[in-house]
Order: sequence, then C-alpha cells, then structure tokens
Amino acid sequence: MKIPESIERVANEFAKLPGIGKKTALRLAFSLLKSSPEEAHAFASAIVEVKEKIRSCQICFSLTEQETCSICQDPLRKGEILCVVEQPNNIFPIEKSGVFQGRYHVLMGAISPLDGIGPNQIKFKELVKRVETEKITEIILATNPTVNGEATALFLQQELIHKVEKITRLARGLPAGSDLEYVDHVTLTQAFSARQSF
Amino acid sequence: MKIPESIERVANEFAKLPGIGKKTALRLAFSLLKSSPEEAHAFASAIVEVKEKIRSCQICFSLTEQETCSICQDPLRKGEILCVVEQPNNIFPIEKSGVFQGRYHVLMGAISPLDGIGPNQIKFKELVKRVETEKITEIILATNPTVNGEATALFLQQELIHKVEKITRLARGLPAGSDLEYVDHVTLTQAFSARQSF
Repeated sequence: MKIPESIERVANEFAKLPGIGKKTALRLAFSLLKSSPEEAHAFASAIVEVKEKIRSCQICFSLTEQETCSICQDPLRKGEILCVVEQPNNIFPIEKSGVFQGRYHVLMGAISPLDGIGPNQIKFKELVKRVETEKITEIILATNPTVNGEATALFLQQELIHKVEKITRLARGLPAGSDLEYVDHVTLTQAFSARQSF
Repeated sequence: MKIPESIERVANEFAKLPGIGKKTALRLAFSLLKSSPEEAHAFASAIVEVKEKIRSCQICFSLTEQETCSICQDPLRKGEILCVVEQPNNIFPIEKSGVFQGRYHVLMGAISPLDGIGPNQIKFKELVKRVETEKITEIILATNPTVNGEATALFLQQELIHKVEKITRLARGLPAGSDLEYVDHVTLTQAFSARQSF
C-alpha cells in the first residue's frame, strides 16, 4: 500500500523544515488528520500570513510587521550602544534575559568564505553607515561562538576600531548549570584563559 | 521586544503538533521566513488539501483518497486473513516490511476504560460484521504492546473466538538489533516465557 499522495505531500513539506526528518514529518502529517478542518485552515493561513506580514526593520534588519521594529521605535532604548547579532532570532533570547537596553543590528548572516559569503553579502555597509551617522559609543559583538561567527567578529572589530570608542564581545566561558565533565575542551580552554579573580 | 504577532501565531500552530515544544515551534516559524512566498503557499495548501482529500476506507477504515483503500481494492490481497491494528498509520510499517499479504481492519483506537473508550467507541461492531460476512479464516491481532493494546486484543479474542477458526497475535520478545543490557524487564520476561527451541 502506498501512502496516499496528499499525506505524502504535506509530509514532504514538513520534512523541509530544519530538524524534521522523514519519519517525524510523516508523524506530523498524520497528526494533522486528527485536527478539525477549521484548525487545519487556521494553520495554513498562519503560514501564509507570516510570510506576508513579516519584513525586515529598515534600520536594524530585525523582524517586524511595521516599517521599523518596536526596539528601533522605542525612545527609551539607549541609542548609543549597539549589539550586533547574526540573525533576527538571536535578538529574542537577549531580550528575554533583559540584560541589554540598547539597540540591535542584525547582520543577516556571518562571513563564510567557503560559502562565498563576504562582507558584501551581510549587512556590513549598513552597520558602518549607522556607526557614522548615529551617535554610537559602544558596539557589542554578539555573533555566535562558531568559526564563522568569530571570524565575523574579528573582521568587524578591525574595520570599526577607528570609528567607535569601544568594541566588546560577549564573554566566553562555562555556561551556567553545566558540568565540567561534559564541557568541551575549547570552552574549557577559554574559561581558563579568561579566568577571573573573586 | 515582543515577537511579532504573526510569528507567534504560526509558532503556536506548530506547537499544537505532537512532539513539538515551544522552542522548536519558534525555530520552525523562523525557518518559514527564509522560504519563498511560493514555498509557504505550497506548504499551506498541502495542509488544507490533506484534510480535504483524505477519508476513511469504507471497508477497513484505513486512510485513502478514494471510497475504499488500495489494499481493499487489490484482488491479489488474501481476503481470508485479517490483520487488526489500532491506527491507520500502523499499517505502513507492516506494508513496508512486506511480511503480510492479507487485508486490514483499523479499530481507530484501543479500549481504554479510564478514557471512556469501550468497544462502541472503536470499530468493533464493524469488525464483527466483517467476520460474519467475509470468509475470514484467521485474525491477526496487531494492537500495540501496551496496556490498552493488550486489553483490546484480549477482548477481541474472547468476543471472536467462536466466530473465526484461528486468532493469533504478534509475537512478543527481543527486538532485532537490541542489547540485553538495555531491554526492559517486561520484554525480557516475555522473551523468556516464549523462548523457542532451535
């Protein structure tokens, strides 16, 4: 027995999502069949709607349903500190922690020579322009602690060092709640070399 | 910064699916934003279509886009052996293994007194009718090896014992490729008590 075509098709759509394998995709497709037609319609229209409504903030390139995002619009956010991240969704965990009151700049990627992604393929020119026109005193580089993220941070640091007073990056070290036994050796090396006195 | 409403909405839809938590749902929602509008539309219409096209086979209650499923329509499948399963998706792994050439009957559930599911809430009457009208010589009970599945199998065995020549159920024992060290004690007990000579 072949799986009915329409089930196969929706499973294939699920399988395109990151982290969803073929088996999971089929399970999700079957679970849809248990929902009501109204629920399926709500799901489908939510998918179409998110594509129609969401765009890039014209200033910081984070996601918004308006011209500019709620952070860029907020007069209470400190305009002189800029936190640079790779992707729009990197903003949400930082906001959730409440640790940062400045504004953001989303690069929309990281420099990756092997993938043909250089400074021109990310929002680097736009960052330089913001540094030159806005009164920015500190840039916090919050790119990911990966090879590409580190390379991007290093590049930005070199390019911007004469344009802004202070450039910092997020500390490397042991994540809270972790166990030394399971920490990888790169993290451990970084935690040692950046060790702090009480 | 609040997550834009339309992203939140599609994430909530993903989170309704089994095994998809809040964090994964949000990740999936973000991944949708990277796809083209055409791809999003294809996804959305696949969801609506699967609900519109898929129905229950009028004979065995498996999933089909026609009145009856491809197995019930297939004249080469042995009509005298009936494999009873709980859910439509239980059929696919059996079909994939190619071990069974008979036909199916989907109960659409398992007896579960605690959840108020008795014989009348599953396709039991329909099974009895098939046994009485079709020329069935063997019923293979392939309900799940869970408390509810076993209870259902026991109930069916008692109800059908005088209506059909032979009632069997799938063997219990060690799964292929498993390691004795990690096998649970129920499985191990069953494997011991059903031990076979060479």
